Amino acid sequence: MLELNTTRQPGGPPPPLPAPTPPGTEQQAEGAGILLQISMLVLAFVLGHVLRRHKIYYLPEASASLLIGLIVGGLANISNKETSIRGWFNFHEEFFFLFLLPPIIFQSGFSLAPKPFFSNFGAIITFALLGTLIASIVTGVLVYLGGLTYLMYRLPLGESLMFGALISATDPVTVLSIFQELGTDMNLYALVFGESVLNDAVAISLYRTMASVRSNDSSGQNLLLVILSFLETFVGSLSSGVGVGFISALLFKYAGLNVENLHNLESCLFVLFPYFSYMLAEGLGLSGIVSILFTGIVMKRYTFSNLSEKSQHFASAFFHLLSSLAEAFVFIYMGFDIAMEQQSWSHIGFIFFSILFIGVARATNVFSCAYLVNLVRPANRQIPMQHQKALWYSGLRGAMAFALALQAVHDLPDGHGQTIFTATTAIVVLTVLLIGGSTGTMLEALKVVGDGHNGRLGDESFVGTDGSTGPSYDEGTSSGSKLQMTLKEFHSTASLTALDRHYLTPFFTSQNDDENPDEATQNSRRITELEGHE
Amino acid sequence: MLELNTTRQPGGPPPPLPAPTPPGTEQQAEGAGILLQISMLVLAFVLGHVLRRHKIYYLPEASASLLIGLIVGGLANISNKETSIRGWFNFHEEFFFLFLLPPIIFQSGFSLAPKPFFSNFGAIITFALLGTLIASIVTGVLVYLGGLTYLMYRLPLGESLMFGALISATDPVTVLSIFQELGTDMNLYALVFGESVLNDAVAISLYRTMASVRSNDSSGQNLLLVILSFLETFVGSLSSGVGVGFISALLFKYAGLNVENLHNLESCLFVLFPYFSYMLAEGLGLSGIVSILFTGIVMKRYTFSNLSEKSQHFASAFFHLLSSLAEAFVFIYMGFDIAMEQQSWSHIGFIFFSILFIGVARATNVFSCAYLVNLVRPANRQIPMQHQKALWYSGLRGAMAFALALQAVHDLPDGHGQTIFTATTAIVVLTVLLIGGSTGTMLEALKVVGDGHNGRLGDESFVGTDGSTGPSYDEGTSSGSKLQMTLKEFHSTASLTALDRHYLTPFFTSQNDDENPDEATQNSRRITELEGHE
Repeated sequence: MLELNTTRQPGGPPPPLPAPTPPGTEQQAEGAGILLQISMLVLAFVLGHVLRRHKIYYLPEASASLLIGLIVGGLANISNKETSIRGWFNFHEEFFFLFLLPPIIFQSGFSLAPKPFFSNFGAIITFALLGTLIASIVTGVLVYLGGLTYLMYRLPLGESLMFGALISATDPVTVLSIFQELGTDMNLYALVFGESVLNDAVAISLYRTMASVRSNDSSGQNLLLVILSFLETFVGSLSSGVGVGFISALLFKYAGLNVENLHNLESCLFVLFPYFSYMLAEGLGLSGIVSILFTGIVMKRYTFSNLSEKSQHFASAFFHLLSSLAEAFVFIYMGFDIAMEQQSWSHIGFIFFSILFIGVARATNVFSCAYLVNLVRPANRQIPMQHQKALWYSGLRGAMAFALALQAVHDLPDGHGQTIFTATTAIVVLTVLLIGGSTGTMLEALKVVGDGHNGRLGDESFVGTDGSTGPSYDEGTSSGSKLQMTLKEFHSTASLTALDRHYLTPFFTSQNDDENPDEATQNSRRITELEGHE
Repeated sequence: MLELNTTRQPGGPPPPLPAPTPPGTEQQAEGAGILLQISMLVLAFVLGHVLRRHKIYYLPEASASLLIGLIVGGLANISNKETSIRGWFNFHEEFFFLFLLPPIIFQSGFSLAPKPFFSNFGAIITFALLGTLIASIVTGVLVYLGGLTYLMYRLPLGESLMFGALISATDPVTVLSIFQELGTDMNLYALVFGESVLNDAVAISLYRTMASVRSNDSSGQNLLLVILSFLETFVGSLSSGVGVGFISALLFKYAGLNVENLHNLESCLFVLFPYFSYMLAEGLGLSGIVSILFTGIVMKRYTFSNLSEKSQHFASAFFHLLSSLAEAFVFIYMGFDIAMEQQSWSHIGFIFFSILFIGVARATNVFSCAYLVNLVRPANRQIPMQHQKALWYSGLRGAMAFALALQAVHDLPDGHGQTIFTATTAIVVLTVLLIGGSTGTMLEALKVVGDGHNGRLGDESFVGTDGSTGPSYDEGTSSGSKLQMTLKEFHSTASLTALDRHYLTPFFTSQNDDENPDEATQNSRRITELEGHE
């Protein structure tokens, strides 16, 4: 649960103010501030578009937004009008948690392509659950040891582990947009995307667990309680999110709204559910972010197909639009903030070693988990070393780490929180600029960019219903071993897929609603085709 | 300019709080509060849909939202948990002015059907400009006299005129939705819609002028200055709104974004312009509401046609969705607020006489302006008495009066503002419930509901490009007098229409972009057909 404890008014009719403010300067300044923000947003979109059009991949859209924020913040700093301009740029935490973050996270779940995601489900879960846990603990322990040995600012163990957890939330935006532009292997794309979506949920749950352990002063003695607390947050939020998603699927299946001239009502209700899920989890003391993420996944898989076609187009475009705007705004703000930050240079040691440590931690995460996954997978579906390297490289930090660092300022008021916030902001800016700028080069060096073969990812064509775009790992294997592999893989994910096919899809969508056996067979054949090599 | 002076943080990284708040109750309560609001929204949409489906017109959607708010507020009051639930329902003024009002007002302008609007432009301007001025002054003077004669709570003249201005902003939502359901005369629809859209702008400008006159203590002595101040606000805001609209039209004409796979960029930019217009006007010390209204009109007329077809569908649905949500939320909140209001019954005399006075003022407005319009119009286009009565009856108050009353609490901190706020909220609730509930009956009694003839309004078909749906006033006239009338009418609106056809449309849209004379002729013929009987 995110703590939204900004100063607030009690609501209701506004209390009379002590004196009427003279009309003029203050309100105009506020208007000018928001105007500046909108102009920066427009500039970010236009600049991003121009850069993409000219195929300049070393400055992707997120970096462009960040740079615009940095430049405007720097100019404001130089012109010495810092306080007034910072006043303009009044970024309420509440605004961030209530309006910016939910659409970004929901869109992550909503845009998840089911096919490559489910066919790599085991690997993704390994990276996201076990890997994030490893990365968090390695980062936390290294930061703690670094403090002990006077290498860097000293944080207690609890705080170090909190920092480790929050900095382990990776951000898919920049890397994935470049993947899509260049066209890369579909399985690599699914791994990077799936991992970074799910590890947000794990990182939040870990962070909250560490925070509650720290405040209860029971660190270390009750490992079982820690694990239980983590599971409670994670599983509870997941269940509430999935539950709301299923309720929405049933509502749209039976309400009969997918007829002409009810599009607006349909869209209004559809748009309210994610937010409902977010707030339900917050109200239950769980994590709204984790909940809305799973609501997104479920709503895309089940509710979406119960909508009328017109509303499907609208809903996709709507959530895409909201998350684009929110994302650009978050990156602009982060750039602006780091340019405004006064004490950033006093933490330069902490920032430097943190970056080193998170690199080490991510390597531990990726290579050990890939080793485990490869132990289980058949020879022709091993994760190749280039993909592991690409996965390691793709671990840049974004909105989620920033959000948790904002949270840390509240949770740790004794200066540690501020240090974590400063370090996180700097790490986000550096990783976005450096990693984001070099991803294209990296992908080419690792030879995983599109070479025109079947499994290539280009402009989302992989989400189409064309069953022929199978995983590219199979290339070069005989059709016999292919079949064998298919069967093996089917068993490994059989429970989830079978559950989906035989119970969830017929129950929550109107696809298999009729008794016609021929059509049912056709439907299940179509689904089999969609799911390809499972 | 709306004054947004709630307590705010300076922005930037959040300052460390004095003590970490314990996780739990407060945040859960906040989540529960927003959850309650979302549930009420969902309930309002579902209830509105069920009522519409069963053709129960005496409880339209806005009334349903209002009643839900009233009931929940009443329950909260009875269960004596008022403070905590009111705390949940934390309705920030800032949220209202920054997120709820702009989409509602923009949608008013954006959904304006150009054809019936422009063919009744003279009458609409008369009702909106002169009529609202008359209604404001009559209401203000009557309220002042009522105070002098101890009939009601006594307000000074300046405050009375401010109240007169803010309560003269009528709300089209409820009446128009019933008009659309029942199908009514197209010209009546255009008059009611056009008047209520434009009179918002006039009422705001009047209110601000009165407020600045009052605070400068120069009331009465400088009538010229008052008129100048009104014109400055009105014309300035109008110009900035129209200017932003034209800039957006040029951007979309020349940026070449209306190609495949740039829909998201196109939509993002399109969606940012209205907000830009709003904030530009606020930053210039003008009225954002007036500005965004005219941006809506211009963007619909020019920018919209430069979008790709997919983005056109999206933009229409997007703004419709946002304004539906915002509107339902505003009505729910108003109902909730009046149920929560403690001191409402002490103002019952003020409320009663105010309602009486605004009825009188609206009658003065409608019947005198209709008389003036009928003096100029030819015999076959006179506004019939039934339409005048329907127009008088349609003057219910909604979001705009509420917003200005919120504003008044700030402008008049000495208790007068609170009185105005209470009275306005009550008037809004009563007019929405009573007028909204009886509009169907009224329309039938006045015999202006759909009888299947040509000019009937049914489900927005009148906005189609079918030139045959001419104004129904012409029915029964010979084609000769029809032609004569057409010529006459053409002269009266010639300047605006000619300007639009020969300069604005070719310059701001890509419709007449080519040099092909045949096609240009066809285009202008098509436009002539679109504009029907002008």
